[in-house]
Amino acid sequence: MTETTGYSGGGFVHVKNPHLDSMEEDILYHLDLGTKTHNLPAMFGDIKFVCVGGSPNRMRAFAQFMQRELGLAGAGEELPDICAGSDRYAMYRAGPVLSISVSSGLLSITVSSLLISISHGMGIPSISIMLHELIKLLHHAKCRDVTIIRIGTSGGLGIEAGSVVITDTAVDSSFQPRFEQVVLGDVVVRSTELDKDLAEELLACSREIADFPTLIGHTMCTYDFYEGQGRLDGALCSFSSEKKLEYLRRAYDAGVRNIEMESTAFAALCGLCGLKAAVVCVALLDRLQGDQIRASHEVLWEYQQRPQRLIAAFIRQRLGLGPAGRSQH
Amino acid sequence: MTETTGYSGGGFVHVKNPHLDSMEEDILYHLDLGTKTHNLPAMFGDIKFVCVGGSPNRMRAFAQFMQRELGLAGAGEELPDICAGSDRYAMYRAGPVLSISVSSGLLSITVSSLLISISHGMGIPSISIMLHELIKLLHHAKCRDVTIIRIGTSGGLGIEAGSVVITDTAVDSSFQPRFEQVVLGDVVVRSTELDKDLAEELLACSREIADFPTLIGHTMCTYDFYEGQGRLDGALCSFSSEKKLEYLRRAYDAGVRNIEMESTAFAALCGLCGLKAAVVCVALLDRLQGDQIRASHEVLWEYQQRPQRLIAAFIRQRLGLGPAGRSQH
Repeated sequence: MTETTGYSGGGFVHVKNPHLDSMEEDILYHLDLGTKTHNLPAMFGDIKFVCVGGSPNRMRAFAQFMQRELGLAGAGEELPDICAGSDRYAMYRAGPVLSISVSSGLLSITVSSLLISISHGMGIPSISIMLHELIKLLHHAKCRDVTIIRIGTSGGLGIEAGSVVITDTAVDSSFQPRFEQVVLGDVVVRSTELDKDLAEELLACSREIADFPTLIGHTMCTYDFYEGQGRLDGALCSFSSEKKLEYLRRAYDAGVRNIEMESTAFAALCGLCGLKAAVVCVALLDRLQGDQIRASHEVLWEYQQRPQRLIAAFIRQRLGLGPAGRSQH
Repeated sequence: MTETTGYSGGGFVHVKNPHLDSMEEDILYHLDLGTKTHNLPAMFGDIKFVCVGGSPNRMRAFAQFMQRELGLAGAGEELPDICAGSDRYAMYRAGPVLSISVSSGLLSITVSSLLISISHGMGIPSISIMLHELIKLLHHAKCRDVTIIRIGTSGGLGIEAGSVVITDTAVDSSFQPRFEQVVLGDVVVRSTELDKDLAEELLACSREIADFPTLIGHTMCTYDFYEGQGRLDGALCSFSSEKKLEYLRRAYDAGVRNIEMESTAFAALCGLCGLKAAVVCVALLDRLQGDQIRASHEVLWEYQQRPQRLIAAFIRQRLGLGPAGRSQH
């Protein structure tokens, strides 16, 4: 059974569940939000950008960074965790974002745009729970024209450490563009294509930022960090260094440029629900050179800023704010 | 290809990776610990009990609870997160634990026992990363005779909300006692049996605690909380309420009494590495009655105490401390 990607009309998020309408209340358990306890349209209705990433500290830092980059009120202040009642995920709001656009020769300024950043933990199951609840949140809040971007870390493949990879297609451990979802014990195969125009738009933005390499490539998504990614340094390892390199070289030849643990599920779920989605990950090392992440905390911290800086440039451009005055720090 | 469970001699953790010995340094990246930066035998060599669970706040509360239950020095004080340099996992130490035993008619008192609690996030990939690094940690620290217990939350199947399930066997979404691990693109099937004696010992301890039901049963482990567990309330749902109940009833008939998202990988990895392991989860609801977790925060909080109270009784008994004087709170 194969499902196809569907986009709904009007730019709304496309929830594909006939049971939802008949529910009197929807408790988004892992976000600690709900349709009866929170006014979701008022809290979230103006969202245009959703950025997700594995680590809660990184996503808080990203929201604070965006406050500064976009010149928003409250920049420098501590941001509250919207999901503080749950310690499964953390969510932060940056905004309202001032938006300037030209339509029919008229300059219009609105404050309706907004960004949220959310942590999703590590691995497909963890990001899937968050995405189901986030997509329902965007649906209940009646959000329109939302762009969602995963910013993360990854292992590079034949690329320099610190390079940023924009994913064109997420592939599984057999290098196939598919995500297998078990539904009531049966396997359903889903497409893992991402928005090509969005990827190109992000690549164009990267040319503004000269101090690190950015490229487009396939991203391999695995269920495991050690054996599943061919690492020799786990608690278990049954293969040789030669077999590992043979596998990673086959991945490279199939177009894979980095490896992480969420992109296939992210691409599949966002695609089915009509969200324009991108995956932008920095490579912390080149897996053809080793397995252990040996760079210092300082170097790794700077690497992790790179996808954030690219997304800031992208959102500034989308909002017509022009290049950042002080973003290169 | 099927692997069998192996126990090593001398009670040591059995790391099955010939490459580890030749590594000059081992960086446990997601724990922010390493063999060159930390004296792991001094920090962790006396550990006898490792308790793992999804949520960082719950695992901190558990370590504090154990400090009180075991009458340890420092009870009531704030516990530092040993993995504070990483926000992937949180780790807390309770101890040293005073241990009293009778051997050859002589009473001996030691302070060599210790307990750590670690959060593992949600889902198989997240717990797998933590377990690989934890098992290497126990290996580097030369720990012996370690018992590891996952305490968690779950959906019950045909049992009252608040019931505690001790897992005899973890099964996959086809109700089979197996875990499929991808290694270099190929599937390896692993056994998911847990320690039967440990499960019986835990059940015996539960008889001390009269205010909630405890049972032994199979635990189904899925890769997804919504479609994978037959929920009607996700962002996507393609099946009817009848099909859902038919699937869940088949699971019940196969012996499944609760559903969670980590047990097969936990059982497989711990079994292969010779760790005596148990899974003890409270059911937050009965999935035959519904999908949404509707109980109040207060009720859910009390439910989450139940596995903790059972483990406290078990460790007190193992240490010869007798029943708790003030644990029922």
